Amino acid sequence: MASVVDATPTPAHPYYPRSALIPHYVPNTYSSPTILVGFGTPVALIGIVTFILTGLIRPNAQRPRLSFIDRVICAWFAICAGIHIILEGYFVVNHRTLAGESTFLAQVWKEYALGDSRYLRSDLVTLCVEGITAALEGPVSLLIIIATIYSWPSRYVMQLCVSIGQIYGLLIYYFTEFFAEESNSDPHWLYYWVYFVGINFFWMIMPIFISIRAWFAMSASTKLADDRELTIRGKKRQ
Amino acid sequence: MASVVDATPTPAHPYYPRSALIPHYVPNTYSSPTILVGFGTPVALIGIVTFILTGLIRPNAQRPRLSFIDRVICAWFAICAGIHIILEGYFVVNHRTLAGESTFLAQVWKEYALGDSRYLRSDLVTLCVEGITAALEGPVSLLIIIATIYSWPSRYVMQLCVSIGQIYGLLIYYFTEFFAEESNSDPHWLYYWVYFVGINFFWMIMPIFISIRAWFAMSASTKLADDRELTIRGKKRQ
Repeated sequence: MASVVDATPTPAHPYYPRSALIPHYVPNTYSSPTILVGFGTPVALIGIVTFILTGLIRPNAQRPRLSFIDRVICAWFAICAGIHIILEGYFVVNHRTLAGESTFLAQVWKEYALGDSRYLRSDLVTLCVEGITAALEGPVSLLIIIATIYSWPSRYVMQLCVSIGQIYGLLIYYFTEFFAEESNSDPHWLYYWVYFVGINFFWMIMPIFISIRAWFAMSASTKLADDRELTIRGKKRQ
Repeated sequence: MASVVDATPTPAHPYYPRSALIPHYVPNTYSSPTILVGFGTPVALIGIVTFILTGLIRPNAQRPRLSFIDRVICAWFAICAGIHIILEGYFVVNHRTLAGESTFLAQVWKEYALGDSRYLRSDLVTLCVEGITAALEGPVSLLIIIATIYSWPSRYVMQLCVSIGQIYGLLIYYFTEFFAEESNSDPHWLYYWVYFVGINFFWMIMPIFISIRAWFAMSASTKLADDRELTIRGKKRQ
């Protein structure tokens, strides 16, 4: 028969809030550095390879090679596509069993979850935001790379749509932790400031930069189109 | 001393889930039709007056009057600005006391809450989405009216940004109810399908329409700017 002491045991997991129930939790078999290097390396490679390749190709003889910024944007969206579709998609599909799994991606999530345990508890908001991110923003990120390389007229619109979605999603994600009654993050600076706030903050900085650039580019083009229409209209009057 | 029967009383409120705790709830003093007409009339007036006024003014002698669609868009964003800033702003500011208030706006919320009780329970996601809507999308909606009337080059970008935000917010709002363990809505068709699904669905249809229009307009302008750059580049080569 269970004793009174057994009724409030120390939870068998390292996550916050300490009262969280993660009954099927299995500890990671890889160390934290192994996971960080093992995950960071392919992500960095995706970015670097995309940046190099987009500097070599010249899809249209009439057009100049891609600018430095366009290549950075391609590298960024390649990283986004990879993370949104593979890592975040993995969470959306496997969220129920994630805490008990030992695949490499599951171990990445269990390491990250020290900064936000919602990923191991099938948190509804996290699932909704990640579902939209994986299903919509991921595939469109891939398309943006093609659109940017081939100078599709829609490249800025697509960049803006995904960036606004990323900013909105991150705001919801941050706010639902900041204003939560109990934090989902280990208060240690590494987990709270680096894992939870820091890593995600890239998805604030880059989308803001890309949105502003797209904003200026499309405003300038709209002005050009407006002026042209006024000129045509003026000529008709004469 | 409380009896066992008293421990599980019928809740003193009409909302779902029936187990929800809304201790400070005070019933509405206005009838449902009074609230619907009292709220719907000014909303309709804002739209109609904006549509009429934007048909009369001619901000720039060189430019034609605003098109029918531009006027509908102005009317739409006038309604958005009013609802985002006044109604949704009221919720964000007063969410803690809303269920016990009897101001007209509080009664609108208490009527709507039959379709979604989260508004009377300071639900975190609802608060986050509504905070972004009231603080960002509301004021920008106002700016969009000016931008559209005066043909600012940024008008389409602004329309797109707010529309994508509205679509994203509504997806989060819908999904967190659809996938919730217990529904927050009275299952009666009026409350679920009309109040919760139906009214909000306007913020799916209109933003999609406006986004597609802005997408085409800005893609066409970008193509014009690209072609112009290619022509200039071609002339330089010769």
